[in-house]
Amino acid sequence: MIRAGIIGATGYGGKELIRILSRHPEVEITSLTAKLDAPVSISEVFPFFRGKVDMTCHPFEGTGVILPQVDVIFLALPHRVSMEIAPEFLARGKKVIDLSADFRLKDPEVYEAWYKVAHKERHLLENAVYGLPELYREKIKTASLIANPGCYPTSIILALAPLVREGRNPVELDDIIIDSKTGISGAGRSPSLTAHFPEINEDMLAYKVAGHQHTPEIEQELSNLAGRAIKITFTPHLVPITSGILSTAYLRLKKKIQWEALSVIYQDFYQGQPFIRLLPERTYPRVKNVVGTNYCEIGWQIDERTSRLLVISAIDNLIKGASGQAVQNMNLMFGFDEETGLK
Amino acid sequence: MIRAGIIGATGYGGKELIRILSRHPEVEITSLTAKLDAPVSISEVFPFFRGKVDMTCHPFEGTGVILPQVDVIFLALPHRVSMEIAPEFLARGKKVIDLSADFRLKDPEVYEAWYKVAHKERHLLENAVYGLPELYREKIKTASLIANPGCYPTSIILALAPLVREGRNPVELDDIIIDSKTGISGAGRSPSLTAHFPEINEDMLAYKVAGHQHTPEIEQELSNLAGRAIKITFTPHLVPITSGILSTAYLRLKKKIQWEALSVIYQDFYQGQPFIRLLPERTYPRVKNVVGTNYCEIGWQIDERTSRLLVISAIDNLIKGASGQAVQNMNLMFGFDEETGLK
Amino acid sequence: MIRAGIIGATGYGGKELIRILSRHPEVEITSLTAKLDAPVSISEVFPFFRGKVDMTCHPFEGTGVILPQVDVIFLALPHRVSMEIAPEFLARGKKVIDLSADFRLKDPEVYEAWYKVAHKERHLLENAVYGLPELYREKIKTASLIANPGCYPTSIILALAPLVREGRNPVELDDIIIDSKTGISGAGRSPSLTAHFPEINEDMLAYKVAGHQHTPEIEQELSNLAGRAIKITFTPHLVPITSGILSTAYLRLKKKIQWEALSVIYQDFYQGQPFIRLLPERTYPRVKNVVGTNYCEIGWQIDERTSRLLVISAIDNLIKGASGQAVQNMNLMFGFDEETGLK
Amino acid sequence: MIRAGIIGATGYGGKELIRILSRHPEVEITSLTAKLDAPVSISEVFPFFRGKVDMTCHPFEGTGVILPQVDVIFLALPHRVSMEIAPEFLARGKKVIDLSADFRLKDPEVYEAWYKVAHKERHLLENAVYGLPELYREKIKTASLIANPGCYPTSIILALAPLVREGRNPVELDDIIIDSKTGISGAGRSPSLTAHFPEINEDMLAYKVAGHQHTPEIEQELSNLAGRAIKITFTPHLVPITSGILSTAYLRLKKKIQWEALSVIYQDFYQGQPFIRLLPERTYPRVKNVVGTNYCEIGWQIDERTSRLLVISAIDNLIKGASGQAVQNMNLMFGFDEETGLK
Repeated sequence: MIRAGIIGATGYGGKELIRILSRHPEVEITSLTAKLDAPVSISEVFPFFRGKVDMTCHPFEGTGVILPQVDVIFLALPHRVSMEIAPEFLARGKKVIDLSADFRLKDPEVYEAWYKVAHKERHLLENAVYGLPELYREKIKTASLIANPGCYPTSIILALAPLVREGRNPVELDDIIIDSKTGISGAGRSPSLTAHFPEINEDMLAYKVAGHQHTPEIEQELSNLAGRAIKITFTPHLVPITSGILSTAYLRLKKKIQWEALSVIYQDFYQGQPFIRLLPERTYPRVKNVVGTNYCEIGWQIDERTSRLLVISAIDNLIKGASGQAVQNMNLMFGFDEETGLK
Repeated sequence: MIRAGIIGATGYGGKELIRILSRHPEVEITSLTAKLDAPVSISEVFPFFRGKVDMTCHPFEGTGVILPQVDVIFLALPHRVSMEIAPEFLARGKKVIDLSADFRLKDPEVYEAWYKVAHKERHLLENAVYGLPELYREKIKTASLIANPGCYPTSIILALAPLVREGRNPVELDDIIIDSKTGISGAGRSPSLTAHFPEINEDMLAYKVAGHQHTPEIEQELSNLAGRAIKITFTPHLVPITSGILSTAYLRLKKKIQWEALSVIYQDFYQGQPFIRLLPERTYPRVKNVVGTNYCEIGWQIDERTSRLLVISAIDNLIKGASGQAVQNMNLMFGFDEETGLK
Repeated sequence: MIRAGIIGATGYGGKELIRILSRHPEVEITSLTAKLDAPVSISEVFPFFRGKVDMTCHPFEGTGVILPQVDVIFLALPHRVSMEIAPEFLARGKKVIDLSADFRLKDPEVYEAWYKVAHKERHLLENAVYGLPELYREKIKTASLIANPGCYPTSIILALAPLVREGRNPVELDDIIIDSKTGISGAGRSPSLTAHFPEINEDMLAYKVAGHQHTPEIEQELSNLAGRAIKITFTPHLVPITSGILSTAYLRLKKKIQWEALSVIYQDFYQGQPFIRLLPERTYPRVKNVVGTNYCEIGWQIDERTSRLLVISAIDNLIKGASGQAVQNMNLMFGFDEETGLK
Repeated sequence: MIRAGIIGATGYGGKELIRILSRHPEVEITSLTAKLDAPVSISEVFPFFRGKVDMTCHPFEGTGVILPQVDVIFLALPHRVSMEIAPEFLARGKKVIDLSADFRLKDPEVYEAWYKVAHKERHLLENAVYGLPELYREKIKTASLIANPGCYPTSIILALAPLVREGRNPVELDDIIIDSKTGISGAGRSPSLTAHFPEINEDMLAYKVAGHQHTPEIEQELSNLAGRAIKITFTPHLVPITSGILSTAYLRLKKKIQWEALSVIYQDFYQGQPFIRLLPERTYPRVKNVVGTNYCEIGWQIDERTSRLLVISAIDNLIKGASGQAVQNMNLMFGFDEETGLK
């Protein structure tokens, strides 16, 4: 039984962490904090927890109180804030799982270019492990600091990893386009005109075109896999559903290949992965199949007329795209069964 | 051709007014103002108007600039604010159509009890005309100040007026229950947690139970019709659609009556009313039939087992429940055909 | 470990049963059947189950094959069909949990009047137990045949039971009105114009006004509680969300009473009930708080101006309103912890 | 005043045609027919028309009755059916506007390859004019038979035409990818599991990947513009909203170009087009801006990192994507102002 704390417990990432951890047989939630004026019952913030999770969420007033209470801390915070807090936990030997972008990009210049703020904890970047178990399971097991992947990157890297891996790739690495669609919970829990029901309901739109901050994170991981620099075109869209990401990737085939040959590549790559679901031919991912779960569903199709390959993936942006994956990482870090609390 | 201004042009009421008035053959919109830091193109606020309405919306800085520009002013403002502004327009002989609650309640004590603020312009209450054309058409024609009805009251008063009118009523006047359901645009355009998409989507809830401020407005008008005091039980609910109100009223029949007899009562009462749509037997209003229109759709059914009468009505909360009705009133005040711009 | 079968596995009731039972530690699903032309993988019918539930759903071709395979059979069938199948299982000593209306009404004449078909198995009605654990827990434990309650009745009976119970009731028993709103999954999984997305999306409507077949079921149970005949006015509405029922009941108070006194009545009545969630004052049920769970959330408010009492409840129509409650009943029938598989 | 008939009046295309034509000052609707067992009031089929359009829709029983009643006939029929009916109207000198795919593809072999049926009226293909006024206005004016464009093709061809036109194009013509998202009304009015509310609500999916029948129509028109054969990769997605298409096109730039230079190309190409709305820099189309209108909204952005150009467009699939465009064509054919009835 380990003790877990969450900083930033009142957002959607926090909510999902509480939901999952409160049913996790190896974990006791011992600390909930957030940017608050006064303590509040977490079941008042999220009435869904009434009668199920009876805890107080306290105003975050520094790490001092929290440090002795936890073995692992989840940081469900905006970027820039995480990097100020994480070091104190690490210094005291605590495990840190950061759901922000602060430790995902290995190159602090890239971080600065996309997040418009200098990175203050460059020395930590080297030890931070990118928390995508399908790629970094062994490193995660011994990591102290996990950079939990972004929601879009999770859906996209998992869709493309088997195809771009060094030495194997049947596709042109310089011709990758990804068109992603997300539900509105991805915009967070702070009210905004963008996420105001009468504005976004019955609407669809592209946003941050050619400029979304998840782009370098996707490129970093695809480049690592390929052993060379990869640039992608990535366009996110908002769709009026609560949860879920559907990503459609467009690739150019190097040469003619059969669906089944691609199936072998995917099957090989994801052999034994508990949360990857590969679809049969002519079957495509649906958000509904994965919402509420930690699964990533992947399907592909060859467009023979244009020699292109399409890969489609679906995840729940708050689970495999955030809190579920964070718990998956925690399970690995503490030697629990990877699926505990997630199935 | 008359000149119209809108104060509070950047909310949903303002948007619908602009949409309707911009196509109205007898009206030129000459002034758009709102609580703003700087002037802004209205088509930037509402991109729907791009290429159709090219006007600047200015920060509201008092009535001085507006007064000489308009023949009629629409106040799409929060209550308490309208009563500070209306007198200046009236003093200069302008017609005022107020979409707030400030001039709806004839008794300032009742206003104070429900709106928690003292009424500063009590002398205007007498001259203000409640802008429900189906009840007050003649008075509206000569009015200077229109108190445009609330959205719930419009749906409910129109549903019940024929039944509670003095000397006619086939129902017990002390046993009236109304269960209303509204879309989220009724909550206004300011972002809030209540109207945050991921919170309200796929949800339903009752709110302000036994305490909604539209209650006295409904009671005032039903009492006027009945010639005696009427109290009602009114419960509003939020439903995750953008626009529309569905009200279900539960009444107790004084004695056995046939559906057709009620039909006669409704047909008589609403003879010649252009925006009332009475439904045939066993047919009930649907929000979708009226959204985007100025119609109020009404249907009724007798529950013979319990001697109750159910009356159901549907309107678009922003049109017949606000801006459409405001234009209907304007048409009457200026002698235009009542339906101009609304069909 | 018991063996469970589901007849009618391809509808929404069946889907939820599979979801819950497949994670139930004391149950093995041994038979899935439905009206089908050919066997089909259940994960093809419901791709949500891919990789989680790998079973074949067979065409239902009589009970012969199923009988030796199960200890309990769930009938997720249309009414009229259940009563033809249930006797064969009962005759072989199997437990039967029927999700249809066939065994809910004790009086076969009432069944015939509302369902327009004669009841063929009148002798079974006496032994059938109405499967609402909060009222009939002890009887359920020894029952062979459970008439699993309807979705609306569950939400309404639970909301009103403490108030109508004999000798206690603070409300007039002849003045009960219930306005319910349901999500579209309540219409079942067969495509229809009513449930066609472009028709029902952004719409709201009342249906089966003064004539819904759940009315006598509600009246039977409230009458049993009161020890005298009770008639109600019940109006169901369709709201464009997938799951959830919100019921708002309007009652007349016999005499002045405080919120807290009602709270005592509710607390007493529901003492120790694991799936009832009573809300604090001025807090009202939201569908979102219960969707995906077996909870029924209940809140109430006094309208002092009109001496009325409002009681509001929320359930997931497919869980506490159908399959979750069916499993709750199964748990009781087989001596498992009542909450197993449901929390 | 011309006389118009609609065959297939009970689908969504028919509904929008009735809505627009009933307010069109130059048109009288004289015939409504559909596949029906008995005549039905159109306001019973679409209660939205109650009190506004009082016409009977008759069972289609051949063209004999209709021929003398109309000057123009709209065919809102499934493909294959239109080509059986159109010739009879043409033979009698009537104008035909066909909303199906039957006369869109100039090459009957291509039609057969994608629609899996032989083309029976090959001789008509030559005279049929593809009804996209922005490309074929002059031809439309004198045409007898209009092949009204598909919804996806309208959104895509309008987005790309200025870029692929012969001699001008700044993009690689062999590297065009289009990712489109449509609302559910695109699936038609016949109930299906795909469009069943509880199935598609809160879901997203790709469908007909690498095989949608609109692909050759898009290619034909882009090829015509370019003066050489163009193949595209086109993927449609379903999104749970009622109406609207958002298309995101991914192109590769031949050489560096500024946003403003592209703006000049678009402005030149669409000079004076009444229903094209070009957006300013860093502003992107939203479905909500065009739903209920005949507009096509277009925006673009350069991804400098990858030398790609993104073009995004939005239309209402039932208006500019079907019935609105059909009326725009009718206006041109009969010499009315092109915008009549559409603004």
